Amino acid sequence: MTYCVGLRMKRGLVFMSDTRTNAGVDNISTFRKMHTWCVPGERLVTLMTAGNLATTQAVISVLEERSKAQGERNPSILEQPSMFQVARLVGETLREVISERSTQGQAADSAFGATIIVGGQIDPGPPRLFLIYPEGNFIEASEDTPFFQIGETKYGRPMLLRGFSEDLTFPDAIKLLLVSFDSTLKANLSVGMPFDLQTYVADSFEIGHEDRITRDNPYYNEISEGWGRALREALGQLPPYDMG
Amino acid sequence: MTYCVGLRMKRGLVFMSDTRTNAGVDNISTFRKMHTWCVPGERLVTLMTAGNLATTQAVISVLEERSKAQGERNPSILEQPSMFQVARLVGETLREVISERSTQGQAADSAFGATIIVGGQIDPGPPRLFLIYPEGNFIEASEDTPFFQIGETKYGRPMLLRGFSEDLTFPDAIKLLLVSFDSTLKANLSVGMPFDLQTYVADSFEIGHEDRITRDNPYYNEISEGWGRALREALGQLPPYDMG
Repeated sequence: MTYCVGLRMKRGLVFMSDTRTNAGVDNISTFRKMHTWCVPGERLVTLMTAGNLATTQAVISVLEERSKAQGERNPSILEQPSMFQVARLVGETLREVISERSTQGQAADSAFGATIIVGGQIDPGPPRLFLIYPEGNFIEASEDTPFFQIGETKYGRPMLLRGFSEDLTFPDAIKLLLVSFDSTLKANLSVGMPFDLQTYVADSFEIGHEDRITRDNPYYNEISEGWGRALREALGQLPPYDMG
Repeated sequence: MTYCVGLRMKRGLVFMSDTRTNAGVDNISTFRKMHTWCVPGERLVTLMTAGNLATTQAVISVLEERSKAQGERNPSILEQPSMFQVARLVGETLREVISERSTQGQAADSAFGATIIVGGQIDPGPPRLFLIYPEGNFIEASEDTPFFQIGETKYGRPMLLRGFSEDLTFPDAIKLLLVSFDSTLKANLSVGMPFDLQTYVADSFEIGHEDRITRDNPYYNEISEGWGRALREALGQLPPYDMG
């Protein structure tokens, strides 16, 4: 499985993804699930992928035009005039890759499906965040739903629902994401470290802060241990049930 | 869907279940999912069910011997010499009900599956807690895994993992369960109030505390609101990420 979250805040966007891929619990690998295209001063587009690895790698390769010789590549994502057009391009590419695999050749036991979060900003538009479905259609984050999760979304959702606000600062948003990722990691073996992190400051048109958070990251360990303690303290503050 | 949790603590057992059943979001009802057989001084057995409602109702009816006339009923659960035999009886009954429906008559789109938590104590054995699968086999709660969840288990699991201990008092255990149920309720429409609650004090061989927690229960509302606040405070206590 996978766990990726994209947040849309007033200050900009935050992306976090795990790196575990697996075909059964005895066949795991580490792959980057976050991919960025950037023309400084003009556009930044970041994609996070969940689902069949062959599908998501094929989508990235097609978007990168890896079928062409090195010198002739001109990723079409860099030619789209708006984030909406980027989302449409990614959705169409995803749908094509899946339908090629589903209708040709051997049938597979598992689906070739994948889901993608794509976010960024293209001058002169605002920062936008989209969730793209395997069918190629997509939805956009709004004030009511200002973040998207893909993959193993359930374990880490309650704290996002309670803790997220569009007014968060980047450091607080990253802390919230780490708490959400830590809960997911503890409950599902197919979500694994390291985590990739990227921030995008609105109207900067360049990559913000980037980090790869590994198992020995002291801040992550502080959050992971501190969160268990803080949670128990929070429980302790609430009044016990009155058994009458 | 459904959400039921059974806790095994040193002081005894706690059971909590929601009451929503649904066939699509436009077809919901309220059904009790917690059923108890008790012979004071000798045995208490409590069952909680998740899955196909026709299946789980049939299992309860067979266990209750509702096919017999009112006066001749003698639920076989009351004749089992141990909780292990109760678990076996429930597992066999569940498997039979499912296989009858699966192999006869019209095929259905959805499965007839169900999962059951059964717990209690039969003199002179200790209190025991089992999770019974649709195939009829089962596992028992142990020191390493002292609680079971069925139905929509994921949203409410992180706080159970962090907050549960076998040394909890009943009032604290009920508080923890309400926090877990509240998070699940907020994320999945097919889990709904009221919640049924029952405690069993080890070696009491009688029903402990029973309650039906409705939406206007002041304690539940205090926990639901207080938990959001406490969670945000807990987050606030942790240090923010250092963006360097």
